Amino acid sequence: MLVKYWMKYTVFYLKQYHAQKVFNNEDCMNSQKLHDIFAWQKLLRHAKIMDSPEKHLRNLIKDKDRLEKFSLYGADIFYDFSRQRVDEKCMDLLFELAETRQLKHRFKCMTDGEKVNITENRAALHTASRSFSDESVFVDNIDVMPEIRKVRDDIKEFASKVHEKKITGSTGKPFNHVVVIGIGGSYLGSEFVSNALYAYADKGIQIHYLSNVDIHNFGRVASCIDPETTIWIVISKSYTTAETMANANLAVSFMKDRGLDPAKHFVTVTSKGSPGDSSCGSILRSFHMFDFIGGRYSVTSAVGGVPLSLVLGYDRFERFLKGAEEMDNHAKSAPLHENLPLVAAMIGIWNNNFMGYQHQAIIPYASPLHRLAPHIQQLYMESNGKSVTDDGDILDEHTGVILFGEPGTNAQHSFFQLAHQGRAFPIDFIGAIRPQYEQYDCKSKGVTNYQELWANFIAQPMALAVGKKDKDRAKRFSGNRPSSTILLNDLSPESMGRILAFYEAKTVFEAFVWGINPFDQFGVELGKTMASGIRNEIAKKNEKSSHSFEGINPIAKFYLDALFSGKLKQK
Amino acid sequence: MLVKYWMKYTVFYLKQYHAQKVFNNEDCMNSQKLHDIFAWQKLLRHAKIMDSPEKHLRNLIKDKDRLEKFSLYGADIFYDFSRQRVDEKCMDLLFELAETRQLKHRFKCMTDGEKVNITENRAALHTASRSFSDESVFVDNIDVMPEIRKVRDDIKEFASKVHEKKITGSTGKPFNHVVVIGIGGSYLGSEFVSNALYAYADKGIQIHYLSNVDIHNFGRVASCIDPETTIWIVISKSYTTAETMANANLAVSFMKDRGLDPAKHFVTVTSKGSPGDSSCGSILRSFHMFDFIGGRYSVTSAVGGVPLSLVLGYDRFERFLKGAEEMDNHAKSAPLHENLPLVAAMIGIWNNNFMGYQHQAIIPYASPLHRLAPHIQQLYMESNGKSVTDDGDILDEHTGVILFGEPGTNAQHSFFQLAHQGRAFPIDFIGAIRPQYEQYDCKSKGVTNYQELWANFIAQPMALAVGKKDKDRAKRFSGNRPSSTILLNDLSPESMGRILAFYEAKTVFEAFVWGINPFDQFGVELGKTMASGIRNEIAKKNEKSSHSFEGINPIAKFYLDALFSGKLKQK
Repeated sequence: MLVKYWMKYTVFYLKQYHAQKVFNNEDCMNSQKLHDIFAWQKLLRHAKIMDSPEKHLRNLIKDKDRLEKFSLYGADIFYDFSRQRVDEKCMDLLFELAETRQLKHRFKCMTDGEKVNITENRAALHTASRSFSDESVFVDNIDVMPEIRKVRDDIKEFASKVHEKKITGSTGKPFNHVVVIGIGGSYLGSEFVSNALYAYADKGIQIHYLSNVDIHNFGRVASCIDPETTIWIVISKSYTTAETMANANLAVSFMKDRGLDPAKHFVTVTSKGSPGDSSCGSILRSFHMFDFIGGRYSVTSAVGGVPLSLVLGYDRFERFLKGAEEMDNHAKSAPLHENLPLVAAMIGIWNNNFMGYQHQAIIPYASPLHRLAPHIQQLYMESNGKSVTDDGDILDEHTGVILFGEPGTNAQHSFFQLAHQGRAFPIDFIGAIRPQYEQYDCKSKGVTNYQELWANFIAQPMALAVGKKDKDRAKRFSGNRPSSTILLNDLSPESMGRILAFYEAKTVFEAFVWGINPFDQFGVELGKTMASGIRNEIAKKNEKSSHSFEGINPIAKFYLDALFSGKLKQK
Repeated sequence: MLVKYWMKYTVFYLKQYHAQKVFNNEDCMNSQKLHDIFAWQKLLRHAKIMDSPEKHLRNLIKDKDRLEKFSLYGADIFYDFSRQRVDEKCMDLLFELAETRQLKHRFKCMTDGEKVNITENRAALHTASRSFSDESVFVDNIDVMPEIRKVRDDIKEFASKVHEKKITGSTGKPFNHVVVIGIGGSYLGSEFVSNALYAYADKGIQIHYLSNVDIHNFGRVASCIDPETTIWIVISKSYTTAETMANANLAVSFMKDRGLDPAKHFVTVTSKGSPGDSSCGSILRSFHMFDFIGGRYSVTSAVGGVPLSLVLGYDRFERFLKGAEEMDNHAKSAPLHENLPLVAAMIGIWNNNFMGYQHQAIIPYASPLHRLAPHIQQLYMESNGKSVTDDGDILDEHTGVILFGEPGTNAQHSFFQLAHQGRAFPIDFIGAIRPQYEQYDCKSKGVTNYQELWANFIAQPMALAVGKKDKDRAKRFSGNRPSSTILLNDLSPESMGRILAFYEAKTVFEAFVWGINPFDQFGVELGKTMASGIRNEIAKKNEKSSHSFEGINPIAKFYLDALFSGKLKQK
């Protein structure tokens, strides 16, 4: 076992070394150490200046052109960084750094199909999954676009047949429940979008997520569905993810127990030729995913496409893709100074590496976005929670921050006490001009509920920035707490695509500055390996109740004994 | 207006000064500065020692008695801090600090009804709300227990009448939807518990939360309920909370539009004599809350009691209270060294003020606890996001950390990449020996799904602690990442009460170390005041469309113009 493991990793290592060399030749990498970069050094010095009292936000925003100078409009999104702790000089230096690190060039390498995921020797082509242009994108000299288009057509055809009741369950009833079985990147994106576009879900199909291997997740889903009218979508690239397989097995036996034929109720989204591909098993249909799209970047592929098209209709899923494509094109083509995700990324680097903030909150003043933060938390923290550069060097600088968030105004009544008077953390406020529900216009205190929401959305960034003096120290607000405000026209499918692609591009731009690989996730491997060892111990005990867990770590043994005894022992 | 505001605050200030003096006399306060405390200084020195390689967790846990020495059992909870970066010396110093800061004495002051909320001159008696002892608790020489018992009896009677269909809606149909209208502490606790005990919700009543003033929250709730069979519970102590009032107004007009009599469908939880008290309006029933229980500590009062008793039955709500009471008694009576929430608080202080961690994650390996982290996020960050001591001094030390979390294994597939290979943050892992659903025992790889969950629950803290060497730096794990493991016997109502009271006690113990007031929240006031100014502007514009927002801050003006124009202007 160990030898096999060792060999697998040696092969990986060699491949990686090769990829690295190729990639170096392509000039898509940055070998210079961050602290040797002149702009980086100047930024370190400038950070001290920005800490001085005259650079307090309450002074900076006195400039009546502040908003004009520190905001951007692109891809139908307005990005306002006027309440960030930056001045012109600071932005100039950040752009100098962005140029030195060739951010736009690296982004182009990515969208062109270069193997920017060097440790795994893969391309990273989530942008291709929403491309509607006629252009080819080559990976290993093969144009990937025809396959991508085919998958989209398959989804469209399948979803419409389900909606037209041409495809039904094994008892002939039309489907009205969808359960997505998938974890991490296989469901967080869909969960965000299906919640965000709930108001558009008019196909009579309810969606549920079975992500956690925890039996409670299954129990709750099982209590909400009608098995006869349920489609299960099993999503796993390799079709070996432990949690997903355990849940899929349970779901299959659950359906069989009820006399329902799994072949009429299960759909898979997986790699061509994986054990879950339709050619290998008896399932209703399978849709392909590709090794050049990682889980956390996959909501615009079949991973999001199949469930979202069932719930919202394929047309709305396509509108969502087109919004994302619009932002991709902006990120690719807009000049440095006008590039929303690039500027946002440089602000992220500034707050993190120069101002020393270790966190970032996302606070949408739009309830439908209530699962945006968990999705971006995964996207960003799994992409940028790294310590090693593309060159294999240990970075001296901090990389990804801790990202969290809840919708406003809820967050105001939760952790905003700390945001105002405790440890400061940067915030992205997000708002939309037009709500999805326009029919409720009842007024309180002279304003509608949506206007009340907006009063808060406008007030909070300002309160955080300017603060307030007070003789009573308990009522004093130090202010100078940075935030950006992101404004959308509406909460349409297109806007969801734009905001998604904005955060995706921001994430990879930050990675490019640090010179890390935002597409691998070796950090999850150790826990998996150890869990596998524990699982074997449990399986042995299941087989032979006399198995005693001797020889394993005493702490682990304690927990295994507790699990099997069914009760805590008093110490 | 300004004068009124100023006067109100001056009166407050004077009251506060008085309260402070009284409280000083009572010897319940700590006036000594933290950095002048000998134990604090020794801890600062000891932190350097704990940073040395021989104190790496992979070495510390080699001690075969590590778990025995660094774990506790109490109130039917097991608390394991063997994977925290502490040694015996460190714990001794932390206990010395706890003694110096009189934590247990202050906790007793709190449960005895002293006015520990000195800035507001109030007691903090959430513990009384779940007391079933015969003892009196006096505030201003009045025993508060009879009122508390009466509210519990009222809830019991009301809930059983609803379940017996003796109380019905205005068209005579029995109730099967409950909508809680309340924000922050008025719903987060109920939301946590109603989700945690979903498997027990057998009364045929679905619960929904209308917290956000965002119209999308209302729109979504409205699309899920049957108005004829819906009870709305409006929760607000003062009955003036802007969001809650706006939502309540909308709900009333929504019911009237459908020909339903609000007096048969609305219940309030509010202070005696508030505008929402039944004596003041035509509502079905009202239940009282008290000024000595703050929102974030109120789930064991009528705030949680009314909705939870409707959904789960009063008996289960009482079992939940009794679990909380058990933990309160433990926190009050267990010696320092055996006191779970106190030790957990000291570990919190250690990680924050001495090891420099700015975050804390809560990762329950139990899906029903998926809203525990948002609730504790509010409880903890609103309580401890302060910078001023009870004496009115600005603290030099950091107070509350950023708290966040998602259930495992989901979190493993989300942000655990960063937890293992990025910026380290302490984690509370929470598990339960027995699941709520025991009927699913289908096995994958020789283990049930619940055992698979446990394999991960056992593996993750160990992987984080020990790390792994690897020639390939991208696959190297530095380890030494601290965590605690909290083990419950089950996910019963009692266990939920225990874990809730554990975090409440931990929160106030940390506050007592810093000498801050965990019961006020002046930090939310500035945003409210500013929102009120913006609201007035919007109301003026609603009234007179020629109102032009001149004279207000140009950034705010930009957003107001955008809202009213209905569209972003291209720059």
